[in-house]
Amino acid sequence: MQINRREFAYGLALSVGALSLRFPFQKQVRVNGQRIMDHIKALGEFGKNPQGGVSRVAYSDADKQGREYALGLMRDASLDVTVDAAGNLIGRRAGKDNLKPLLIGSHIDTVPEGGNYDGVVGSLGAIEVAQTLAENNITLQHPLEVVIFQNEEGGLIGSRAMNGELTEKELDLVSRSGKTIREGIKFIGGDTSKLSEVKRNKGDIAAYLELHIEQGNTLDTEKINIGVVEGIVGINWWDVTIEGFANHAGTTAMNNRQDALLAAAKFIEAVNRIVTSEPGRQVGTVGRINAFPGAPNVIPGKVVLSLELRDLNAGKIKTLYDKIYAEAQQIATTSKTKFDFKEINVNIPAPTDPQMQTFIETAARELGLSTKKMPSGAGHDAQDMAQLGPVGMIFVPSVGGISHSPREFSHPADIANGANVLLHTILKVDK
Amino acid sequence: MQINRREFAYGLALSVGALSLRFPFQKQVRVNGQRIMDHIKALGEFGKNPQGGVSRVAYSDADKQGREYALGLMRDASLDVTVDAAGNLIGRRAGKDNLKPLLIGSHIDTVPEGGNYDGVVGSLGAIEVAQTLAENNITLQHPLEVVIFQNEEGGLIGSRAMNGELTEKELDLVSRSGKTIREGIKFIGGDTSKLSEVKRNKGDIAAYLELHIEQGNTLDTEKINIGVVEGIVGINWWDVTIEGFANHAGTTAMNNRQDALLAAAKFIEAVNRIVTSEPGRQVGTVGRINAFPGAPNVIPGKVVLSLELRDLNAGKIKTLYDKIYAEAQQIATTSKTKFDFKEINVNIPAPTDPQMQTFIETAARELGLSTKKMPSGAGHDAQDMAQLGPVGMIFVPSVGGISHSPREFSHPADIANGANVLLHTILKVDK
Repeated sequence: MQINRREFAYGLALSVGALSLRFPFQKQVRVNGQRIMDHIKALGEFGKNPQGGVSRVAYSDADKQGREYALGLMRDASLDVTVDAAGNLIGRRAGKDNLKPLLIGSHIDTVPEGGNYDGVVGSLGAIEVAQTLAENNITLQHPLEVVIFQNEEGGLIGSRAMNGELTEKELDLVSRSGKTIREGIKFIGGDTSKLSEVKRNKGDIAAYLELHIEQGNTLDTEKINIGVVEGIVGINWWDVTIEGFANHAGTTAMNNRQDALLAAAKFIEAVNRIVTSEPGRQVGTVGRINAFPGAPNVIPGKVVLSLELRDLNAGKIKTLYDKIYAEAQQIATTSKTKFDFKEINVNIPAPTDPQMQTFIETAARELGLSTKKMPSGAGHDAQDMAQLGPVGMIFVPSVGGISHSPREFSHPADIANGANVLLHTILKVDK
Repeated sequence: MQINRREFAYGLALSVGALSLRFPFQKQVRVNGQRIMDHIKALGEFGKNPQGGVSRVAYSDADKQGREYALGLMRDASLDVTVDAAGNLIGRRAGKDNLKPLLIGSHIDTVPEGGNYDGVVGSLGAIEVAQTLAENNITLQHPLEVVIFQNEEGGLIGSRAMNGELTEKELDLVSRSGKTIREGIKFIGGDTSKLSEVKRNKGDIAAYLELHIEQGNTLDTEKINIGVVEGIVGINWWDVTIEGFANHAGTTAMNNRQDALLAAAKFIEAVNRIVTSEPGRQVGTVGRINAFPGAPNVIPGKVVLSLELRDLNAGKIKTLYDKIYAEAQQIATTSKTKFDFKEINVNIPAPTDPQMQTFIETAARELGLSTKKMPSGAGHDAQDMAQLGPVGMIFVPSVGGISHSPREFSHPADIANGANVLLHTILKVDK
């Protein structure tokens, strides 16, 4: 019923033929929320875990099957589908003019034992937007490209191929599927010998818009409908090695120890204290730890742990790191250990485009939805697209802030809201 | 020259034929310190690591070769050698009377990447004592048994077979060699179907005396020659599981985390603080830690770590544990995590015999050596022998208190001192 009413409204606008008269009718256009949910459920069968959630890691059989399913949805949405040489799925809808394309999309690969929403909401939401445009016979000025980037979870591989960052060396790294990235790209229909054809340059795109679940709990806790992403945080990751001296846990007096794990414990506490001691949304995490030799009756002589800091402001990350580093030196002195920091990876912060933020806010407001500006604490393909043109990101609430988990969940109404905001933001950007 | 002089002295005593006259001469008897060092060096070839130290884990080829070497030394010392059904090497020297045997010995298996002294000093020192007795034609009242217990490092297996504690179930546990204990015992010449023949009962031995390196730094730091062991500490080991909630390290605000590793860090610090906050020689160690899922970008949802407490007084261990447990509950509350303690192993404290302590002190004093009473923080076969009869332990200094390491070292002069104290203690006990 909803669709028929819309088609009627749009048909009427077309019959008038005046652009200025079409907009009031287009504002009535809505996605089919139930259809998105049906598609999410169907896609969730590929890589479904018996205990809940999905494991659809990039280049796995489940990933390949999920991509075939998504490709079918794209065709159903009247998109002209290709698989680029990097293995990204691209569904194109022609525009009226010979303009640069508007891109919308996300990813459908998951972490091991992940959920049904991360990436999926934005991917199937983008396809739904295209289908809604098709069903309403709306032709944009710009060509529209729905992109499902491959292997987001394993290092933004598809979007980094598109912005030219993916290196030949990386292709030989082994992904979670067990295949190298090179083998994986071939497996999903790409061709690594033609990666240069995939690369786009700064200015090649009109804009990139991505709908995504928040993965944090801010929107859910504050009962906000839509998050307007200000940027994707920078992520700095170090491996920290603490050298003490392994010795017999029974015979070595407490005051004669160089216990690397005790020093690590003080360090972990310090990271938390320093990161939380100033206002802001910065986060700091020690997620991995290994103590050697790792026996109950031996004082650990060596600990290796990860330190990760994230913030929208690279300067703030630097300040936090300097404080943590200084405190580590104090811990080293008092515990007779030695700390060594090795930088493993740096993703610089990627701000979104202010005009895109305004379009998203306006679209949401016109749909009667509340908004809040916020950073994205997680990395997204959008951060790579930010090098090619203006990007915007639309967040919908994650219940309990749970993500990368079978318990990941977003309400259908919120998902429909997000897709409608994506649709109406695209309509605004297109103008 | 030394030996010839001793032989002369003892020969003179024999020619007099009066027991009362023999003792002044026996007091002159000394072991051959250089010979012990030569044997230690030769044994160190079996399982020698290129980077220093040895890996001669029980039931390995190196262990088997080392045992064959030790068996040859026993025969050279005129001992009547057997391998008991548990795989212990026993070298017997007949006594004058039909008395219960006096046992001396230790072990020659090592931890992986261990040193050349732990167990070896006591084993080769005991053989040297037997050889010195033989060379000096000294026949004790009691039969003497030099015992090299098998697989001390893997759970006091040989001595626990002898006191009847080794269970059928344990035989199927896999040892560090990769063999089950059952397979290992067969590999070294034992026969698990006859383990009941190995078992001795309370009162079956006149005494057990063990020479060992301290493995701590007390004697070395305080420049004491001989440690007189008051007892072997009790060892309680728990596995502690901390349950938090694994979540995305980028999207989960600091105040919305249930970080199991942060809780673990506070726990490790608390263990150290509680154990060191009262006087005494108690020790507490967290030696093993595993955080799950263990990725730099995921907040750990679960940590499993080991807690080990040791003291000569079981009541003190209980008190420390109670304090640690109470503080864990506080940490659980503030960090929104849950602590679960699982008792894995309990070795009750094993006091040595006060009379044996006196014999050791007197023997040392007569040899012009300084002594200090102290606990053994490490477990030893002596703790199992304590169930069969009075035991005594003699410690010699470990340089820097380093043990279970290629850097384990004791000075030759201290090793000779220890063997001489063992010899003269035996002579006193025999009376």
